[in-house]
Amino acid sequence: MPDVSDAPFAFDRATAVARRPGPDAVHDVAVDPGWTIGDKPNGGYLLAMLARAGLESVAAVEGPEHPHPLAATATYVSAPSLAPGEVHSEVLRRGRGMSQVRTVLVQGGATKVEATFTCGRLDPDERTWWGEVAVPPMPAPDGGRRSAGVAPGGIRLPIRDHVDVWFDPATAGFVSDDRAGVGELRGWFRFVDDRPSDPLSLLLAVDALPPATFDIPGTTGWVPTLSLSAYIRALPAPGPLTIRQRAGIIERGLVDEVCEVWDSRGRLVAQATQLAGVRTG
Amino acid sequence: MPDVSDAPFAFDRATAVARRPGPDAVHDVAVDPGWTIGDKPNGGYLLAMLARAGLESVAAVEGPEHPHPLAATATYVSAPSLAPGEVHSEVLRRGRGMSQVRTVLVQGGATKVEATFTCGRLDPDERTWWGEVAVPPMPAPDGGRRSAGVAPGGIRLPIRDHVDVWFDPATAGFVSDDRAGVGELRGWFRFVDDRPSDPLSLLLAVDALPPATFDIPGTTGWVPTLSLSAYIRALPAPGPLTIRQRAGIIERGLVDEVCEVWDSRGRLVAQATQLAGVRTG
Repeated sequence: MPDVSDAPFAFDRATAVARRPGPDAVHDVAVDPGWTIGDKPNGGYLLAMLARAGLESVAAVEGPEHPHPLAATATYVSAPSLAPGEVHSEVLRRGRGMSQVRTVLVQGGATKVEATFTCGRLDPDERTWWGEVAVPPMPAPDGGRRSAGVAPGGIRLPIRDHVDVWFDPATAGFVSDDRAGVGELRGWFRFVDDRPSDPLSLLLAVDALPPATFDIPGTTGWVPTLSLSAYIRALPAPGPLTIRQRAGIIERGLVDEVCEVWDSRGRLVAQATQLAGVRTG
Repeated sequence: MPDVSDAPFAFDRATAVARRPGPDAVHDVAVDPGWTIGDKPNGGYLLAMLARAGLESVAAVEGPEHPHPLAATATYVSAPSLAPGEVHSEVLRRGRGMSQVRTVLVQGGATKVEATFTCGRLDPDERTWWGEVAVPPMPAPDGGRRSAGVAPGGIRLPIRDHVDVWFDPATAGFVSDDRAGVGELRGWFRFVDDRPSDPLSLLLAVDALPPATFDIPGTTGWVPTLSLSAYIRALPAPGPLTIRQRAGIIERGLVDEVCEVWDSRGRLVAQATQLAGVRTG
């Protein structure tokens, strides 16, 4: 089990990894019961834990040159237990500018989540060379509606003890079952213990809002992610993050969702897409 | 080497896989020199080949219930040689409605491409339950500008012997270096030998247009994909496909692109996103 007693922030304690002695890149982890939706670990939380193991495995063979996840793709195989596990990493590419590493979360011999990361170094002075995705017009965060610890349907949200989410009131109709039907949620994100955002925590942020299907009448229950991809584009500035989660189309019990994350400067810092199961009717 | 002498269409011959005897899911493949950009295999072509091996591996343990790729994530580690290789598959999830399988293309002991697929069955009678992504307004395909066998910079395009791509004239300025600067390309896709589209060939289609950065002044050269994710949403109707490829932001030598594919009914059948390297200035 990782020794995390000295980590000052809950996110770092819950995503801690401890490398086993030996030549293989195997890390012990503990899936934390506090970062869950009901009794299911949040997908972004798991992705951040896997990234930590993968980045450590890259650093072990290459040194500290590629400390940030630039791209991440995850396949969710089955919901992990809230229990210890191990992450097996394999460095796939060792390049000058980028590395790639595959990570697998295993519990009781079974694969629970796989994720592959492209890693590199983000530069705080880097500027966007082309393109802009403007932050959506929203009221000030203190005019938002805070997410409660319980979701529609009575599902408990232990993760809300660690992550504060407020919603733009224009997209918060689902709280009172008055859904707009647009398939879009907008909100703000911050850690309850004021942990600063960094590329690792952006992997949590891209899966931190409820599914955008909450805004669509006739869908029920939680939305299990099957496949998720995230790109981390810049180092986030201090302050709360703005997040927009949009549903694309629902067909055959599957929904695609696009997530965008801006920092307090209004700069796009993370993008993600996922395909998830959804119950309709 | 796979025996493909009886496959009537070039795409099926070039993506053929031949399982080796034995308990492990290892398929022999041959990376075809005809499906390349310069001397680099097209990323969608490689993804389709890996999908074929993965789907066969799923069928070997579960039967024919999950014949279609629903989600695919690929990490491109290094450009494969135009030579034989092997695909190692591992079935990760065996479920009633869906299976998941990881595939790795190996040449000379080195990992070249990894891809994980979520597989299931698409139903020809399925309808979209919610949402719509409208096909962009475009002239009739015969008013389009056909892609030549040579790209800007003089790069040869052997893949154009197999895949016809026409461009919407409004987005074809790059051909004469008169780029619109919008970061969007639109076009049509069909196989030269009239092979019908299916979920497997949609994995090619999502990477078949040139990079949308071609529409942006100041970018040069080809755009190597690092990470690509695709969702196949419906069985395509006969006829040419419409494809839109859009660039998001360019920063730190990386560009995100979104690709959407519609069939001849105007129905969205595939979606993809990728992060790729791009040279600027």
